[in-house]
Amino acid sequence: MTTKRPLTELQTPALLLDRARMRANIKRMADHVGKLGTVIRPHVKTHKSAQVMQDVIAGGNTQGITVSTLREAEYFFDQGERDILYAVGIIPSKLEAIAALVARGARIKIILDSVEAARLVAEKAAELGLSLPVLIELDVDGHRSGIAPDGDQLIPVADAVLQSAPHLRFRGVMTHAGESYHATSEADLKAAARNERDMSVHAADRLRQAGIEVDEVSIGATPTGLFAEDLSGITEVRVGVYVFFDLVMAGIGVCDTSEIALSVLASVIGHQADKQWAITDAGWMAMSRDRGTANQAVDQGYGLVLGLDGEPMEDFFVARTNQEHGIIESRSGAGDPTRLAIGDRVRILPNHACATASEYDRYYVIEDGEIVAEWPRINGW
Amino acid sequence: MTTKRPLTELQTPALLLDRARMRANIKRMADHVGKLGTVIRPHVKTHKSAQVMQDVIAGGNTQGITVSTLREAEYFFDQGERDILYAVGIIPSKLEAIAALVARGARIKIILDSVEAARLVAEKAAELGLSLPVLIELDVDGHRSGIAPDGDQLIPVADAVLQSAPHLRFRGVMTHAGESYHATSEADLKAAARNERDMSVHAADRLRQAGIEVDEVSIGATPTGLFAEDLSGITEVRVGVYVFFDLVMAGIGVCDTSEIALSVLASVIGHQADKQWAITDAGWMAMSRDRGTANQAVDQGYGLVLGLDGEPMEDFFVARTNQEHGIIESRSGAGDPTRLAIGDRVRILPNHACATASEYDRYYVIEDGEIVAEWPRINGW
Repeated sequence: MTTKRPLTELQTPALLLDRARMRANIKRMADHVGKLGTVIRPHVKTHKSAQVMQDVIAGGNTQGITVSTLREAEYFFDQGERDILYAVGIIPSKLEAIAALVARGARIKIILDSVEAARLVAEKAAELGLSLPVLIELDVDGHRSGIAPDGDQLIPVADAVLQSAPHLRFRGVMTHAGESYHATSEADLKAAARNERDMSVHAADRLRQAGIEVDEVSIGATPTGLFAEDLSGITEVRVGVYVFFDLVMAGIGVCDTSEIALSVLASVIGHQADKQWAITDAGWMAMSRDRGTANQAVDQGYGLVLGLDGEPMEDFFVARTNQEHGIIESRSGAGDPTRLAIGDRVRILPNHACATASEYDRYYVIEDGEIVAEWPRINGW
Repeated sequence: MTTKRPLTELQTPALLLDRARMRANIKRMADHVGKLGTVIRPHVKTHKSAQVMQDVIAGGNTQGITVSTLREAEYFFDQGERDILYAVGIIPSKLEAIAALVARGARIKIILDSVEAARLVAEKAAELGLSLPVLIELDVDGHRSGIAPDGDQLIPVADAVLQSAPHLRFRGVMTHAGESYHATSEADLKAAARNERDMSVHAADRLRQAGIEVDEVSIGATPTGLFAEDLSGITEVRVGVYVFFDLVMAGIGVCDTSEIALSVLASVIGHQADKQWAITDAGWMAMSRDRGTANQAVDQGYGLVLGLDGEPMEDFFVARTNQEHGIIESRSGAGDPTRLAIGDRVRILPNHACATASEYDRYYVIEDGEIVAEWPRINGW
């Protein structure tokens, strides 16, 4: 256990994780999904940390994990996780790494969305002596990959998987309602959640009507997970960013900025008095280049400025950045950030937790305003 | 020495470095700056790699290095570099790390731009028994930090440094013409270079007229470094991204896309036939969220698609991304990226080399289309 340290002792920039806020976020999702009768398969792509994962599991109502890279699968396997869904379309060249994990005891489920992929992957799985459970990826909102739940490819792709037994084992369907990130009202969020659930259950029903057994119907995105009103027929909900939240999620009404658990600690390094700028050492490398709030009702620049107490500092935000410089302005112009002295510290809420956290190799965990632990995280592939 | 390997053997996404292109870029800058009678103090923030640095030094006409983080200073010191300019405004809390390097034999120069900073830093330097060379940061184009070359703060800040001897030792002035990244013509580039040089020399002249000895006049940015026509009075040019170049630099006419040395190797993982999308495993995590070409004449999306041979593939570009998904479209709509089969590989040129490279922990160095080495790089602070 690290001895407690004040925030003033850290080198900046540094990534802070408010554990109380995180635990409340974890509980909120676990309770909501549980109340609707299903479970969470937590997505680790946001936090990539075994210690955060322990808090997610302690929050209850989870089964296994979801990963977006093989590196995540390998890391969390080494941390003791066995039940892993690799939720990015699989290709043959990724199967050797999966075979290595399976040989060590991992149960890895894969996804695909075409007859071509089923054929190529089955061939490689056979060569490697693998028998992998498979979900078909659905596209419920035009977001990226996946086949149309009511289109003519659903049954042929399922057949291609079934015909590839025992190397592929058909398990069901999955989707991610990524367009829910662009919702602009609670009604939008509820509609996106309803659409994600209904389209997925519809696809499962079509498969069942074709005589195909469907054991799993896996859906999920943080906005739809929290605004779903009905999850009947859904076997698991895959969510990730809810653990930390961020300004994009606050901007679409999924959380309040006071619930965001992640922030970047920065030091004031200078001023431009004429422009009422305070300049910090947290540039875009420290915040990421993510400008996810740029097209929202409130553009948060590169982040919202808090004091060390975690409370907003007037209407200060990071209006612009260079690689290692951030420029704090008053949004209205009524405040004057040059009142911050050289060496003063601020905290900055990020636009996008996944992107900002990926710039760091560790979290400094804070409780009651003090650092109580350092938790490592992984990056890369 | 790594045995040569074809690009088809790498896991994707992976970061490729074309060494022949890089060496040509290094030579171009070394020759141009040398012809104008001065030297380069290479900025390491783009590559953060000891092996790349060796090629930069081999290209000739360099002295020391420029860093943007203490982590860079520590890493390159460990790799044998002794002469280091930390080119971000210094604050007292960063001085202990600097003192540790100085104690080990580093010569570290710092920058500052206010009487307040001079006073605070001198106090801490005295406490640590340091005697640090100092440059005053100038603002020649309203880009970020620095004092106006013709403003009323120049002499007082220099005086504050001089009065802090021996803990601070006044050496001269420095600036970075960051606004040159927004040039739209060769005339703009030349004008930005002229302005950067003239304003810096003007500041040095003002100081000399006040009886202050100025030994160093340090300037630099890749666009101004390459388009300068006169560097008289300049003691060094600090440049970084020229080593790799990127689509932002190509977009402002500093290089051709065929000179960009960095690319991301990606695999096709699926399609959306109706939309003529090919989907790859290089999302924004692999390319970075940098959209530096968004406001240029040609918006390159998240990157320009090449074949494995390094030649452009029709008019394909990465039009949109998710965290681990990239979507390739034909810019004109005349081409059809769905002709790429699942498992096919492409290379993607990045918008911004500094941002994209920071997503990786190593470069795969290619010569004649084959991988010949793996070079590690650092990240973080």
